[in-house]
Amino acid sequence: MTAVHDLQARLRDAVGDAGLITDAGQMSGYLTDWRDAYGGRAATVVRPATTEEVAAVVRLCREAGAAVVPQGGNTGLCGGSMPDASGRQVVLSLTRMRRIRALDPVNQTITVEAGVVLQRVQEAAAAAGRLFPLSLGAEGSATIGGNLATNAGGTGVLRYGTMRDLTLGLEVVLPDGRIWNGLRGLRKDNTGYDLKQLFIGAEGTLGVITAAVLKLYPAVRSRATAWVALPSPQAAVDLIGIVSELCGDRLTGFEIMSRQSVDFVLRHGAGARDPFAAVHPWYVLVELSDTLPDAGLDGLLETALAEAFDRDVAADAVVASGSAQVATLWALREGISEAQNFEGPSLKHDVTVPISSIPTFVEQTDRALRAAVPGIRIVAYGHIGDGNLHYNLSKPPGSSDDAFRARADELARIVYDSTRGFDGSISAEHGLGQSKAAIIGDYKDGYELELMRGVKQLFDPGNLMNPGKVLLSPG
Amino acid sequence: MTAVHDLQARLRDAVGDAGLITDAGQMSGYLTDWRDAYGGRAATVVRPATTEEVAAVVRLCREAGAAVVPQGGNTGLCGGSMPDASGRQVVLSLTRMRRIRALDPVNQTITVEAGVVLQRVQEAAAAAGRLFPLSLGAEGSATIGGNLATNAGGTGVLRYGTMRDLTLGLEVVLPDGRIWNGLRGLRKDNTGYDLKQLFIGAEGTLGVITAAVLKLYPAVRSRATAWVALPSPQAAVDLIGIVSELCGDRLTGFEIMSRQSVDFVLRHGAGARDPFAAVHPWYVLVELSDTLPDAGLDGLLETALAEAFDRDVAADAVVASGSAQVATLWALREGISEAQNFEGPSLKHDVTVPISSIPTFVEQTDRALRAAVPGIRIVAYGHIGDGNLHYNLSKPPGSSDDAFRARADELARIVYDSTRGFDGSISAEHGLGQSKAAIIGDYKDGYELELMRGVKQLFDPGNLMNPGKVLLSPG
Repeated sequence: MTAVHDLQARLRDAVGDAGLITDAGQMSGYLTDWRDAYGGRAATVVRPATTEEVAAVVRLCREAGAAVVPQGGNTGLCGGSMPDASGRQVVLSLTRMRRIRALDPVNQTITVEAGVVLQRVQEAAAAAGRLFPLSLGAEGSATIGGNLATNAGGTGVLRYGTMRDLTLGLEVVLPDGRIWNGLRGLRKDNTGYDLKQLFIGAEGTLGVITAAVLKLYPAVRSRATAWVALPSPQAAVDLIGIVSELCGDRLTGFEIMSRQSVDFVLRHGAGARDPFAAVHPWYVLVELSDTLPDAGLDGLLETALAEAFDRDVAADAVVASGSAQVATLWALREGISEAQNFEGPSLKHDVTVPISSIPTFVEQTDRALRAAVPGIRIVAYGHIGDGNLHYNLSKPPGSSDDAFRARADELARIVYDSTRGFDGSISAEHGLGQSKAAIIGDYKDGYELELMRGVKQLFDPGNLMNPGKVLLSPG
Repeated sequence: MTAVHDLQARLRDAVGDAGLITDAGQMSGYLTDWRDAYGGRAATVVRPATTEEVAAVVRLCREAGAAVVPQGGNTGLCGGSMPDASGRQVVLSLTRMRRIRALDPVNQTITVEAGVVLQRVQEAAAAAGRLFPLSLGAEGSATIGGNLATNAGGTGVLRYGTMRDLTLGLEVVLPDGRIWNGLRGLRKDNTGYDLKQLFIGAEGTLGVITAAVLKLYPAVRSRATAWVALPSPQAAVDLIGIVSELCGDRLTGFEIMSRQSVDFVLRHGAGARDPFAAVHPWYVLVELSDTLPDAGLDGLLETALAEAFDRDVAADAVVASGSAQVATLWALREGISEAQNFEGPSLKHDVTVPISSIPTFVEQTDRALRAAVPGIRIVAYGHIGDGNLHYNLSKPPGSSDDAFRARADELARIVYDSTRGFDGSISAEHGLGQSKAAIIGDYKDGYELELMRGVKQLFDPGNLMNPGKVLLSPG
């Protein structure tokens, strides 16, 4: 019996037949990500159903010297949940751990297992008259465990923060196979180092998150949505100021899109229609929301837009009337990523700079990209209210896919290098995964990397938890 | 020349005459805390004016094998910033590092040095039309560095979170004397382990925080405040539900007080007056706020209170009219701690349980305390909206101070043991300092303490950063 078969047999003892996948065909869905951008091979795929089973799997893999690759809904963008090509790693899928363990409407908390899909958490909260505010494109398949491992962001960060801000407690299986029960539902707890913070955003390199206590909020009962045409990113930043001044913390969404981004959706999105007759270089989608019903948000938004016209900030604007129109406007925003696929390879980047630096950052980055590839199509869009842009790139029309793909690293460098002068980040919300683990060393100071390696060494001295992700050389 | 004099001379070279205090009389203000509850001796008190000077001090102390005790405004409640009795430790006061380095109203961030007093940050934000929401009794002297080191809470947590939630970036001098520049003003940055989280709440045991980038919010422009009489803690929890249901996220303050707490203020507070003719067992102070002017909050609050009367939740209530009355009501809440001092020794405790567990927790804890000390006066009050109670105790009237003080540990155990059944915490917002470092081992599971000790060992293998705080035996 080979070592792999020996480990498989032990894993089967630990998780049962239902928890083990060894058939190549059945494994394949776990070995390549949803975009087919990253993939690998695995010794086996294991799907434990309880925290104790996860702990047993981690212990058995440790004894066998096999690396563990935790995986959730497989919707990541940086290959963080994909095994390498060796065929020796074990993929640990959390998708059978899908219980909602508790919902306490008075404490405003929900306790869920790692494999629960984000949308189910949103729905459970809504059924209890509460809001779980994390919201992102992949919410129908992304799991809470993956959201925690990557500290997910999305469209609600402006008002509610990232997944980190929404988390009160964690349960984690550490690399030594022991279970740390930090499932506390407390809003204040100052009793030493806040260990849970290390696991959030660590992409499974320090342990396997198996459950979490998450914050709930009062339900949102009014919304107003506008689509605004603007001459420039500076105008978008000015508009944030105006809306924030006049609408205060009712401003809960502020998304920017370049004309190029919207153009792709208009070309490829089913039923997509330009709200305006004229073409404008930039657009924003503004959302106000309120926890009270009939909160007069349309009027408030119209007042802010009138001020924006008065100050020559906005070129055109429409406030959505009715939920169908709201959905149509959001579809223009949410359709960008898919529409871009029709135009050849998408080179995706996900950066942040301080909001006040966005105009200069965009000008400088666009100029450098156009100098490198004349005719390049820049699909810049994203959560400008958080300083976060998805700076995606498509080839010049009619040019070769392969030639464009071959320049991916060079073009990524242009975008990432451009963040430097603004104390920005080369990963706002997608994490490092494997794609950026290889280059983060060029963008973070050496001392910070040294401290990160120290933490990794402390928790996972054998480098068996998701090796090659976040940090290339942990030692 | 003794070793101490040698270190003093080197420190003087590093920080200049203005930065060194060796005179016993001048040192005394740094060697005992504001309540005179904790105190010690020091080799010297050093007051560096820049980050580089802090780094030099830490390096020199390390070379001399002298422990460093970072200190801010000296308003802590657990002795976290006090040296021990050896006379060999160096107190590092951050109070000369008091520059506001930057305020970016567009990015909604402020960058401040550790020694800036909290109230100055609030004022600087207000002058820019923004809100810095951390608010607590000691804000006129507590420093941002101390707020960070203890992850301060206060009365704004319900809506805005703790100091941790308000922090985007840190600058820290590590125990090896190197400076980590993590002063990023980004709302999203997922590029590896979030190291700043380790230093927040670590009470100076992992390094010295020298500066921070903090979040600002839209200014608050409307407020409504009510004082409500209630039959029980259960009624208070029910009232949170009613106000939250009808006022949504405009609920920004919810403080509870036992009659005993209010009684002390009425007896000792200058000008304090009971808003009601009848005596009630519990009170809450409810605050709504809004970022819009003229937001109709009084009417909203009255609607919620009417509902509370209809459901027999509230016994009496008054909505403050005008800022003078608001101040009078808040004085009843803020005056408790001082008023209690007139009644003999105050045994202070600061605990959290899930909000839904508060009624049972109070009933059980009160019963155990009264059984232990018949006639004991229980001054329970605090941020019930966060599940956080200050469970303070005063002796039975006419009994001996010393006899009561002698039972401090026993009574603390009763309060802390009571949190166990509710997955609570023995320190909500005050930290562990030296007082709770000695007992936290009995309330946290051994594995979590082991992980904490690992982190301490990683960052501070020589155990020279604030030894004896947070963890008693770091090795």
